[in-house]
Amino acid sequence: MISVESFSTRSRIAEPDEAISHDELQLATRNHGLPLEGLRYDVTPVGLHYLLVHYDIPLINEADWALEIRGRVDHPVRLDLAELRSMTQRTVRTTLECAGNGRALFEPRPISQPWLVEAVGTADWTGVPLVDLLERTGLRSDATDFVFTGADRGVERGVFQNYQRGLHLADAIAADVIVAHRMNGVSIPPQHGFPVRLVVPGWYGMAHVKWLQSVQVIDTEFDGYQNSVAYRMGHEPGEAGRPVTRIEPRALLVPPGYPDFMSRLRFVDAGPVELMGRAWSGWGRIDRVEISVDGGTEWLPAELADAQGRWAWRSFRCVWAARPGEYLLTARAVDETGRVQPAQADWNRGGFANNSHQRIRTVVLGG
Amino acid sequence: MISVESFSTRSRIAEPDEAISHDELQLATRNHGLPLEGLRYDVTPVGLHYLLVHYDIPLINEADWALEIRGRVDHPVRLDLAELRSMTQRTVRTTLECAGNGRALFEPRPISQPWLVEAVGTADWTGVPLVDLLERTGLRSDATDFVFTGADRGVERGVFQNYQRGLHLADAIAADVIVAHRMNGVSIPPQHGFPVRLVVPGWYGMAHVKWLQSVQVIDTEFDGYQNSVAYRMGHEPGEAGRPVTRIEPRALLVPPGYPDFMSRLRFVDAGPVELMGRAWSGWGRIDRVEISVDGGTEWLPAELADAQGRWAWRSFRCVWAARPGEYLLTARAVDETGRVQPAQADWNRGGFANNSHQRIRTVVLGG
Repeated sequence: MISVESFSTRSRIAEPDEAISHDELQLATRNHGLPLEGLRYDVTPVGLHYLLVHYDIPLINEADWALEIRGRVDHPVRLDLAELRSMTQRTVRTTLECAGNGRALFEPRPISQPWLVEAVGTADWTGVPLVDLLERTGLRSDATDFVFTGADRGVERGVFQNYQRGLHLADAIAADVIVAHRMNGVSIPPQHGFPVRLVVPGWYGMAHVKWLQSVQVIDTEFDGYQNSVAYRMGHEPGEAGRPVTRIEPRALLVPPGYPDFMSRLRFVDAGPVELMGRAWSGWGRIDRVEISVDGGTEWLPAELADAQGRWAWRSFRCVWAARPGEYLLTARAVDETGRVQPAQADWNRGGFANNSHQRIRTVVLGG
Repeated sequence: MISVESFSTRSRIAEPDEAISHDELQLATRNHGLPLEGLRYDVTPVGLHYLLVHYDIPLINEADWALEIRGRVDHPVRLDLAELRSMTQRTVRTTLECAGNGRALFEPRPISQPWLVEAVGTADWTGVPLVDLLERTGLRSDATDFVFTGADRGVERGVFQNYQRGLHLADAIAADVIVAHRMNGVSIPPQHGFPVRLVVPGWYGMAHVKWLQSVQVIDTEFDGYQNSVAYRMGHEPGEAGRPVTRIEPRALLVPPGYPDFMSRLRFVDAGPVELMGRAWSGWGRIDRVEISVDGGTEWLPAELADAQGRWAWRSFRCVWAARPGEYLLTARAVDETGRVQPAQADWNRGGFANNSHQRIRTVVLGG
């Protein structure tokens, strides 16, 4: 009997100095980050927004699709796309970041999708607030949690599953949580969840279930794989650790000047250089961003542009009087809750929430 | 004096067993391939088409953009986007593949963008045939070659440059070579060349200059970096080698069933399994595709769908009576010129045109 379990791959931490494996490379060539010059756009153009697909992109016929809402509700419903479009629509500009962003920069490196710093993007998501759908179904008094199920299906550590995530009632009924069918004003592209995905502003990407096909209301905390095993901040094998939830603060600079093709080392001419970037936090508004050109010894305040709503990144800039030499550029963000982006984030076994400072090697030419 | 040359990186071949470096990973997280399930679409949705950007994506204001055609012409012109749109338009469905596709599977591995097999995509490109533009300018009798220059700028092996490619007269005036401003019916996205790119159907991606800003007609072969140094099929350091030109034949299967997240190993249920994929060649029509489930010992003929024009991939399929066990799936294509996709393509120092057979590890469950 040939079963999935016999081909199960265990979670693994790289050996010291172990370089990127073929498995990690396969993921890196399928999935993709935001090329950092893409931070210049308020809204990330389609195709530049980061993408992480756990299994395969499912092929969904719009006419066959329906969303079921069932479980601890008074009136289960099944909605097609026409019905969803006929309801009151809401658009939320939202910065999404993969929980694994920064993973490949942790030492030792957890083996999974090997992001450096680029797994982010901002889109205008349009759809129906989940609370409006729940007004139709009603909620029974014992409802405490939600399970969102996508159409994507595959195996992780020997467990055959559809991608599924649980969310507590209080988080799910926030006004900005939407069942979205448009991204930047057009139908959601296949890879980002066509025809419908969940958007949970402020949370890391794992909460925004793509290819959404059912919402189940339950009376206990969801203990499925993605909540109880995968997205946890543990240190030891088997340690539960706390769940991954909201996005930690991060600032990223657009690398200035021109790149070297292979090393991505930057070259700029001496003189005034405008540095710009974006900063975001899922916990609250960004209140302060600072920039350093010496790897974090001295910090200069950056000027912050107005926020674009509650959930989108904020742009920042400052002018650097660049003199010939070698530099290490970085930035750090502080949000209104007082969370400070650290020089080195705490290591964890899943490689999550690594919001350590970006480092951009830059050469100023001339002299 | 700090100069670009002092930070030059030399071309390099990986040591035996040397794994993917940080530099290669940086490129892999910025650029991206077609997730192989994306082979199901005749036309690749925006964001799934492969993307390779040598330097940075330039930020171009449409109102400021103009295309200059100059050099060995009778009447140099400068065209804005409105003029380009006012001319007779042509749409060409074209399969584009990166010349470096397969590079990371060569042994030893040339160090550059580490593609496996996925650097491909098919789009409907719309614009003005280059020959129509040349009717306006006329060509002097000594015109023999073209230089196409993009707005993207950076450093390769110590050479500061705008991306520039030369093309011989006969190749450039083919009817299907177009100056394109639309991709799949919409403005070209920034990362694919907004507002205008060259499309040279049948050629590897390096010929399709993105962010096109000038066409210079010259009377000698262009000897710039991308033609004389970068895209050459040499074996020894410094050996010129022959130029990379048209796309070699290749067939790729959509991996069947469901993936394991980390290894991308495939699981399918026993029984009839429809295998499908796409095949293409820049030299001529695809005439035959065969499929093997044992890594290339026995081959089954695949059924070919009608071609979608001269320059787009052709779909193929066959039904596999899958019995429990482990398999290695692959496919091979033959084009009308008799070019046969090899089990193992010839190694070269740049890692180009590696059209060796794809290999998909697949487990059939049950028994």
